Amino acid sequence: MTPDPIQRLTAELAKLPGIGEKTAQRLAFHVLRAKADYARDLAKALVDVVEKVRLCSVCCSLTEADPCAVCLDPRRDGRLLCVVESVPDLLAVERTREFRGRYHVLHGALSPLDGIGPDQLRIKELLARLGGSEVVEEVIVATNPDIEGEATALYLTRLLRPAGVRVTRIAQGVPMGGDLEYADQVTLARALSGRREI
Amino acid sequence: MTPDPIQRLTAELAKLPGIGEKTAQRLAFHVLRAKADYARDLAKALVDVVEKVRLCSVCCSLTEADPCAVCLDPRRDGRLLCVVESVPDLLAVERTREFRGRYHVLHGALSPLDGIGPDQLRIKELLARLGGSEVVEEVIVATNPDIEGEATALYLTRLLRPAGVRVTRIAQGVPMGGDLEYADQVTLARALSGRREI
Repeated sequence: MTPDPIQRLTAELAKLPGIGEKTAQRLAFHVLRAKADYARDLAKALVDVVEKVRLCSVCCSLTEADPCAVCLDPRRDGRLLCVVESVPDLLAVERTREFRGRYHVLHGALSPLDGIGPDQLRIKELLARLGGSEVVEEVIVATNPDIEGEATALYLTRLLRPAGVRVTRIAQGVPMGGDLEYADQVTLARALSGRREI
Repeated sequence: MTPDPIQRLTAELAKLPGIGEKTAQRLAFHVLRAKADYARDLAKALVDVVEKVRLCSVCCSLTEADPCAVCLDPRRDGRLLCVVESVPDLLAVERTREFRGRYHVLHGALSPLDGIGPDQLRIKELLARLGGSEVVEEVIVATNPDIEGEATALYLTRLLRPAGVRVTRIAQGVPMGGDLEYADQVTLARALSGRREI
């Protein structure tokens, strides 16, 4: 009953994460009702993003120009390197306006069950930076506080510490604005063991 | 911080209904992580849908070939015409497998506050069908059971009844599988006033 092009668009949209068959159909009809320019603009933006965006050859972040703006910025402190799993994580750190060092994006975390070992991550590139012309004094491991992120942090620590670089981990504890009553056990246990002198 | 193409894609995706800024960014990064073919396939599907899909010149439904498959199908009963607000509504009626007549899609409902009067809907086309070579005996008004849909149903009834055609409205009452305790007052009042001999 539905014309073929609408069915194909629905099928493609349904491949996006969090978009089910029904939402995909609603979006497809929305695209049809919107001005024809909208579909073309969105189509162009999609093709542009895969054609123009590439990995920065230094930090492996996503960029249009290589090296990326952060790696080129002389005001950023190259002695501090923040290792993150993904570019959205990098953007989250950047939003704090607290960090003025540089980044390294792993593009994932160790997860043997999913077939993701050290070779699937950008760890080679990280080692090359530390052994290269950059003078890095501290590597802040800002992987996610979940099983994969913790495993990756441990792996990186064992790999980097012998090379004489200081390896630190972002603090884990109760989130600001949270309520101890509703904090989960693991988080509260970490908050206790990670306590600091006031 | 985010490369321009990703920002543009995020902005375009955020124009979709129900997709906020944050979801749009998540989708944009997903597109980047997916195979490059995916972005191109989705882009092609978007352009195709606006270039290949048009209105059926008979029923105003969406179709690739004009007239649409339903209007051409000789097994459908042309004496029965189901008037719906939108193509998704048409598909919902079609899914019941209860209706073997033909359709007419209004592409909206009367809503003076939004500037949608009879001229903005496909009512001229409906009148042309009734006055043309088609022999229509009954028009089933299947607009939504909300204020705009009810107003549209009333408007169509006043317009079509003098022309000698039978105008009916889909039944309103408690939905199947529902619970009287949780039915709203208006629905239950409609169910009572619309009661039928068992």
